[in-house]
Amino acid sequence: MGKGRFEAFSDGVIAIIITIMVLEIKVPHGSDFATLLPLFPVFLSYVLSFIYIGIYWNNHHHLLHATHKISAGNLWANLHLLFWLSLIPFSTGWMGENHFAAAPTALYGVNLFMAALAYWLLQYSLICSAGDSSILKKAIGGDIKGKLSLLLYGLGILLAFQIALLSQAIYVAVALMWLIPDRRIESALKEDR
Amino acid sequence: MGKGRFEAFSDGVIAIIITIMVLEIKVPHGSDFATLLPLFPVFLSYVLSFIYIGIYWNNHHHLLHATHKISAGNLWANLHLLFWLSLIPFSTGWMGENHFAAAPTALYGVNLFMAALAYWLLQYSLICSAGDSSILKKAIGGDIKGKLSLLLYGLGILLAFQIALLSQAIYVAVALMWLIPDRRIESALKEDR
Amino acid sequence: MGKGRFEAFSDGVIAIIITIMVLEIKVPHGSDFATLLPLFPVFLSYVLSFIYIGIYWNNHHHLLHATHKISAGNLWANLHLLFWLSLIPFSTGWMGENHFAAAPTALYGVNLFMAALAYWLLQYSLICSAGDSSILKKAIGGDIKGKLSLLLYGLGILLAFQIALLSQAIYVAVALMWLIPDRRIESALKEDR
Amino acid sequence: MGKGRFEAFSDGVIAIIITIMVLEIKVPHGSDFATLLPLFPVFLSYVLSFIYIGIYWNNHHHLLHATHKISAGNLWANLHLLFWLSLIPFSTGWMGENHFAAAPTALYGVNLFMAALAYWLLQYSLICSAGDSSILKKAIGGDIKGKLSLLLYGLGILLAFQIALLSQAIYVAVALMWLIPDRRIESALKEDR
Repeated sequence: MGKGRFEAFSDGVIAIIITIMVLEIKVPHGSDFATLLPLFPVFLSYVLSFIYIGIYWNNHHHLLHATHKISAGNLWANLHLLFWLSLIPFSTGWMGENHFAAAPTALYGVNLFMAALAYWLLQYSLICSAGDSSILKKAIGGDIKGKLSLLLYGLGILLAFQIALLSQAIYVAVALMWLIPDRRIESALKEDR
Repeated sequence: MGKGRFEAFSDGVIAIIITIMVLEIKVPHGSDFATLLPLFPVFLSYVLSFIYIGIYWNNHHHLLHATHKISAGNLWANLHLLFWLSLIPFSTGWMGENHFAAAPTALYGVNLFMAALAYWLLQYSLICSAGDSSILKKAIGGDIKGKLSLLLYGLGILLAFQIALLSQAIYVAVALMWLIPDRRIESALKEDR
Repeated sequence: MGKGRFEAFSDGVIAIIITIMVLEIKVPHGSDFATLLPLFPVFLSYVLSFIYIGIYWNNHHHLLHATHKISAGNLWANLHLLFWLSLIPFSTGWMGENHFAAAPTALYGVNLFMAALAYWLLQYSLICSAGDSSILKKAIGGDIKGKLSLLLYGLGILLAFQIALLSQAIYVAVALMWLIPDRRIESALKEDR
Repeated sequence: MGKGRFEAFSDGVIAIIITIMVLEIKVPHGSDFATLLPLFPVFLSYVLSFIYIGIYWNNHHHLLHATHKISAGNLWANLHLLFWLSLIPFSTGWMGENHFAAAPTALYGVNLFMAALAYWLLQYSLICSAGDSSILKKAIGGDIKGKLSLLLYGLGILLAFQIALLSQAIYVAVALMWLIPDRRIESALKEDR
């Protein structure tokens, strides 16, 4: 199976997820800036989730760039990732509306953890299809960033009930870590030429 | 007519359907996990419908893969399928909100039945256009899985008013049956080479 | 300017319009079939609008098929068409919720009229860019169906305040008239070869 | 990195933004034209924002047309632009619901200003990647229209609290200025041949 429609479908779903999140920022009744104040945490959580979805799109793009054929297993691994990403508008909205309270902060962490796990599974299933000697395998390598993210999300979930603010700081830190683009695949591709 | 825009439009609609379903999981007022409990059936029905839409996208992809030209009739058969799929967010929401009660369970079954029938019609119309000696015709064959699904959905609808839980089990079983990808088309394509 | 991105953007917008319309069918509170009854007119108007958007996508597809270059003017003529189509979920929702009352029926007709006018303008602007000797010009010809539609929508608007049901019948009749695909362009393309 | 998926993702997000804005025009309860009257300012602000998003899509299209490779920095500059565009449905809804009151008018101006700034940054980052001798660099030139827009948005924000109507007039004027398509890139491309 070619990867054209696979990419197009993933792009479509990710584009919709990143855009419908804004529907959680409900237009307030009242025409002065004070009515916007309660929306500020909703806005902040929107910014964070926008960046996360952007990171996933970016990394997904790099991952597929180094892939040529898609198996049925890859397809379901991809849908599994899209499933967890599709829940981000919900967990973002709950966290924003409750001003970063303990339980919503933990749930947001669980959502990020599951999405990262699903991404790891997709990566693993793509490597399995491509073979051990593939560029992808070389490009991913030890995947320290991926493993570290899972660990940090886990830490964030545990800390949410003690110091929710620290959990938030961890989520922001992981996002910043990923904003630096994944040069591994690009450099492995270059070496291969 | 080429199939490029036909596929792109179908992908777009299916991507939107699978994503807007999450809007039915309304963000609850309240910041502890207990407020999430009433959402659990909504979440479960979301998972089931996500898998169903994923299956349809997957099968649609395989079906189109073995097709070369699209007639006007094919186009409307496709829109007819997209129509029934577009109602799945509604019937999923109604079933989830009412904790899998009898009538919503039956309606969900009717929706699945109509979508399966529309898929069968699309398949039939594509075979008609392609001709009896086509790869598609060989690939589909007796279509036992398709016919069995229609039968099982019908059974699910009838059972909904006696034992709604059994209907749910049937819907889950049909989904699992389809998760195994449709290798018929792929193998027919290979034989043809 | 190439027509690839132009088509992709139009497809995206039309796919979203046809899908978000279903969000106007709100999930009812209550778990028996009786709670669905008030939704029946909403459902009927959804079916009609789904068919209309399907017709527009279909015709748009044929129109672009016979076009090669897109000018800036064509682009705005296209956005103008998408604007009126984007209002169809609103006018559909209003008509459905008010059980096909006079004013919503008239507004729906106005929306259909403006969309048809915008389609005519797009067609005209594409012919202008392509030149009088173009396939498109030959394919469209006298455009009797287009002109008749405008006339019938106008009649529907006027009749809405006398016999709203007759207006509805006119809207349905125009849709049926267009369900027969626009063979003019296809046959002109064939002749040209 | 190729620009195909980059364009497709941007198109998807922009198509969704331009379409979900219509969800802010809530279907009124009541079946006569009088119930539509309070929606008139919402409709007007929808028209303005529709044109703005259309302009951004148009200009984005031209910008990418003169670009060949996309760097990681370009990608984030583009997501930054999409972020500000994604907030336009919110600020449009707030402005429309409050009948163009002072604060919402100012916020709408801030949103337009930030989107214009993000567009300028994207343009700048694409020129940086392409090099000083690139067609893009020549095409953009002094970018008087871009700088003038930023100035006018700034003026609109300041005036919102004195004469909100004048701010609105400025926003409309800037939109009209951009409706004239950006011929700079097209003509630079032609010269290059």
